[in-house]
Amino acid sequence: MTAIIRGSQPLIAFQGERGAFSEEAARKLLGARIQVLPCPRFEDVFRSLKEGRASGAVVPIENTLAGSVHENYDHLVTYNFPIMAETSVRIVHNLIAPKGVKFSQVRRVFSHPVALNQCLDFFAANPQMERTPFYDTAGSVKMLAEERLTDAAGIASAVAAEIYGARILRRSIESDRQNFTRFFLLRTPAFARRHPIRADANPLWKTSLVFSTRNTPGALFRALSAFALRDLNLTKIESRPLRGKPWEYLFYVDFQGRVDAPNVRNALRHVEELADFMRVLGCYPKGA
Amino acid sequence: MTAIIRGSQPLIAFQGERGAFSEEAARKLLGARIQVLPCPRFEDVFRSLKEGRASGAVVPIENTLAGSVHENYDHLVTYNFPIMAETSVRIVHNLIAPKGVKFSQVRRVFSHPVALNQCLDFFAANPQMERTPFYDTAGSVKMLAEERLTDAAGIASAVAAEIYGARILRRSIESDRQNFTRFFLLRTPAFARRHPIRADANPLWKTSLVFSTRNTPGALFRALSAFALRDLNLTKIESRPLRGKPWEYLFYVDFQGRVDAPNVRNALRHVEELADFMRVLGCYPKGA
Repeated sequence: MTAIIRGSQPLIAFQGERGAFSEEAARKLLGARIQVLPCPRFEDVFRSLKEGRASGAVVPIENTLAGSVHENYDHLVTYNFPIMAETSVRIVHNLIAPKGVKFSQVRRVFSHPVALNQCLDFFAANPQMERTPFYDTAGSVKMLAEERLTDAAGIASAVAAEIYGARILRRSIESDRQNFTRFFLLRTPAFARRHPIRADANPLWKTSLVFSTRNTPGALFRALSAFALRDLNLTKIESRPLRGKPWEYLFYVDFQGRVDAPNVRNALRHVEELADFMRVLGCYPKGA
Repeated sequence: MTAIIRGSQPLIAFQGERGAFSEEAARKLLGARIQVLPCPRFEDVFRSLKEGRASGAVVPIENTLAGSVHENYDHLVTYNFPIMAETSVRIVHNLIAPKGVKFSQVRRVFSHPVALNQCLDFFAANPQMERTPFYDTAGSVKMLAEERLTDAAGIASAVAAEIYGARILRRSIESDRQNFTRFFLLRTPAFARRHPIRADANPLWKTSLVFSTRNTPGALFRALSAFALRDLNLTKIESRPLRGKPWEYLFYVDFQGRVDAPNVRNALRHVEELADFMRVLGCYPKGA
């Protein structure tokens, strides 16, 4: 997937502190030499693209334990930057402390509440450690490194340990190893021009689209028939409320296929015929 | 809908402090004389049913602005209490202060961050008021009443003002009036026996079910055909990740129809034939 980047390194926005899992995803997609723009909130990530402060962005879209990141589904429609690539990252939680702090010294463990909750087996085996909620996973390691606490550790990615010069005391302390997050790489038109996707880099492609149906019986079924009748494999469907129309929905669909293939073109024309609204969100090589 | 309750008043669990929108939904479903059990978290609500501390529970399942309450979708499967009724409540945010506090005195406004964000037009028109995040909408009114603050107000339901003996300074300050939350009433078997649903109380019924498909192309489409081929109108579809099977999903479907009608029985048998797993979550009169 690193083949999609040529020339000078792009500036990639993501939510969270340096060392967030989104940065790990960005490195996986674009190589370790990218420049990064950490943002406090998801909306700031999309704004940084809109205002031209970043040339690309990496955002999480779903997690195999927590489900979809609905806020980002909404932003995809509002901000309308095409999806350029996808990847998934296994969420490996590591116990990380400033250099010199030993495992036996750790009494408090800082991290995002979701990460703390995903390491309950570890905390059951180490009752001397107190779980302390913090706003961010990588941010907890940053704070420990700055404050030089000697009785505390954080839970974050291996990239966070590397960035803040801290040490991994225990690797992979998450209870459920089937914990993956899927990320999208979004692009500005200028980024797309400078870094074209190589058409032959990957034989399998995916297309993402969003549509709303007329509120009639069987409307969703008929829309999905556009894919089923052409043997296009749906890999994800997500619904979100339609603003201003209570109990009506936007449907987000991912399927395997290239937007320029004849059967996909026909399927999209078919959905358009049935839908009140339809937009292709992107066509990108299927991630590993 | 109050017709579904007969005899002594049930004890109904819900998430939040007294005066939460869930209590408003419970009153709408069961009348104002119910006894209530406020719980800190959604999981506590389901546990209170399991442990027999409550005879029923009212939980939010979706909101027309924020979308589905995914945690409760997950609990529906885990705890397996049948859905007995549904209702929807328009989310009306009121500015509420302890008696004696005037609108002109208010400098700080406490509420849940979601409620604060749904009143941005009001705050734009009243820049002298500072938004102060609090853990709960009704809880903010409870706190103000207890602390007797004279420069502060909360944002919560009219029921919260009534319960805590506070005064509504401004009604309906939400920016978007198309803000509805749909709630489910869940029942224990004992509650169901004592308070049977009257079959003829409402001519329209809905059925909710959950299923997972085999991970093959067209599987969801074929499952939905079970409804479409019998002209059963789907009103909601929701997907949630399947634990232990990355990138596979549970689908939650609501449709119009009674579980004992012949076409619904046939549709359910058809879904069962196609699905890896299927369970009916409830059959209940369609809410207003």
